[in-house]
Amino acid sequence: MKVYQHKVQYYETDQMGFVHHSNYIRWFEEARDDFFNQTDAPYKVTESKGILSPVISVNCKYIKSCYYGELINIYVTLVKYGNVKFTVGYKVVGAENGELKAEGETEHCFLSTDGKVISMKRVWPEMHEKLSLLQGISTGE
Amino acid sequence: MKVYQHKVQYYETDQMGFVHHSNYIRWFEEARDDFFNQTDAPYKVTESKGILSPVISVNCKYIKSCYYGELINIYVTLVKYGNVKFTVGYKVVGAENGELKAEGETEHCFLSTDGKVISMKRVWPEMHEKLSLLQGISTGE
Amino acid sequence: MKVYQHKVQYYETDQMGFVHHSNYIRWFEEARDDFFNQTDAPYKVTESKGILSPVISVNCKYIKSCYYGELINIYVTLVKYGNVKFTVGYKVVGAENGELKAEGETEHCFLSTDGKVISMKRVWPEMHEKLSLLQGISTGE
Amino acid sequence: MKVYQHKVQYYETDQMGFVHHSNYIRWFEEARDDFFNQTDAPYKVTESKGILSPVISVNCKYIKSCYYGELINIYVTLVKYGNVKFTVGYKVVGAENGELKAEGETEHCFLSTDGKVISMKRVWPEMHEKLSLLQGISTGE
Repeated sequence: MKVYQHKVQYYETDQMGFVHHSNYIRWFEEARDDFFNQTDAPYKVTESKGILSPVISVNCKYIKSCYYGELINIYVTLVKYGNVKFTVGYKVVGAENGELKAEGETEHCFLSTDGKVISMKRVWPEMHEKLSLLQGISTGE
Repeated sequence: MKVYQHKVQYYETDQMGFVHHSNYIRWFEEARDDFFNQTDAPYKVTESKGILSPVISVNCKYIKSCYYGELINIYVTLVKYGNVKFTVGYKVVGAENGELKAEGETEHCFLSTDGKVISMKRVWPEMHEKLSLLQGISTGE
Repeated sequence: MKVYQHKVQYYETDQMGFVHHSNYIRWFEEARDDFFNQTDAPYKVTESKGILSPVISVNCKYIKSCYYGELINIYVTLVKYGNVKFTVGYKVVGAENGELKAEGETEHCFLSTDGKVISMKRVWPEMHEKLSLLQGISTGE
Repeated sequence: MKVYQHKVQYYETDQMGFVHHSNYIRWFEEARDDFFNQTDAPYKVTESKGILSPVISVNCKYIKSCYYGELINIYVTLVKYGNVKFTVGYKVVGAENGELKAEGETEHCFLSTDGKVISMKRVWPEMHEKLSLLQGISTGE
């Protein structure tokens, strides 16, 4: 699977002169979305069936700053896939210098549009099967 | 009606050292929302009836920069209210120094949740009446 | 010159179910930056000389909504280049269906880092020459 | 110390119909800034001396959704203050219903504007003293 690339935008910087830390959380989403788009389980399809997968936790360690105009590689791994929860890991790396900029994880559950936690296995067994097979898979390999 | 106040946040700045221009468009929304919340026609109520009022045009002139930590007054006027469209005007003013920072307008239509332009007068005559009466009204007066 | 492409991100939508209008202003910046990167006058170079070009006005007409996952083409034209000001035009078009989503303009001046308006011709004649030659140039042609 | 209040803005929602998770990270910043503004060690003052305190890690647990128009209380605690690092904790609570929405922490270091980690004690002993005294202090108490 191909690694996701993001070009740092001017509006993502703050007056410290580099990217504001909140934007990495958005990049995680961009890269996660791209990961699932490269499989046969894109999030768009899941959501179109009335199944949301909101973030239930996030963590990020910031190691080096990202600068306006830099090209960034974001490596994604489906760390763990359960029936009601899954965990995605991220590595944010400078595309030009290979510098590790940040790493983190997001945890997700499955939710119906009226806000109830649902079991993917019970509600949509075929998708459950597809997602199970992605466990441990990473982009950039 | 009371004027809306916004404190400039760090994440709203960019590496020029002042607020990124896109944030003023968001401040317009904050101030417009506050304007209608001070009347008996809050947007939340309108939307809960399945009537959206998306922005169909925006313009903004940037006159002076806004800095992290500054307190900003945003003056709102319902410039024009029609049956299918309305226009809101904004003045962005430094609360401490009275400096005019920016001014602009947004234009809105009424839309059903399935994307059809609707006539407020026909769909919800009481709300149409309320909104008509707000024409020309400004905050801070 | 190549047209700039943007993939609509989930975090760019709001609860109306499509892209929040403020994000188009950020897309204008992305596309403008890409435009100058395709020339020998990238903004990064200009800024590294201590010359900023902040937005002094913006306008945008919203014609059709943009949805999560859509691929968007943003066409850029350097409408007018003067010595102390320039104007950039944008067309936001659905890449799959050719639909015109929005169009707008931004106006910029040249500013020293201590906030004084400067004449590019006087301060940096070679760059002034380069930018003059770009007047009327569009991407996607 | 007074608790920080944030009103949920429309542009903070996404198409799930509630606030996008990245915005909590920005609210943490709003509340942290307000915390220090209530002491005699505002961040603005620190930064004006050429001392930055970037975020070096963040974590957040999302418990309940926040909705457009909701009033949110964000409780802040200076969990730990060292000489080169400090940790701030946050509780995001619905102002109307007392519902715990989210909780998290950010970790910060002190950095010179040329990117070197600095010891506050050595560089600015008076500020170090002030910050030390805030350890364990919370808003809303």
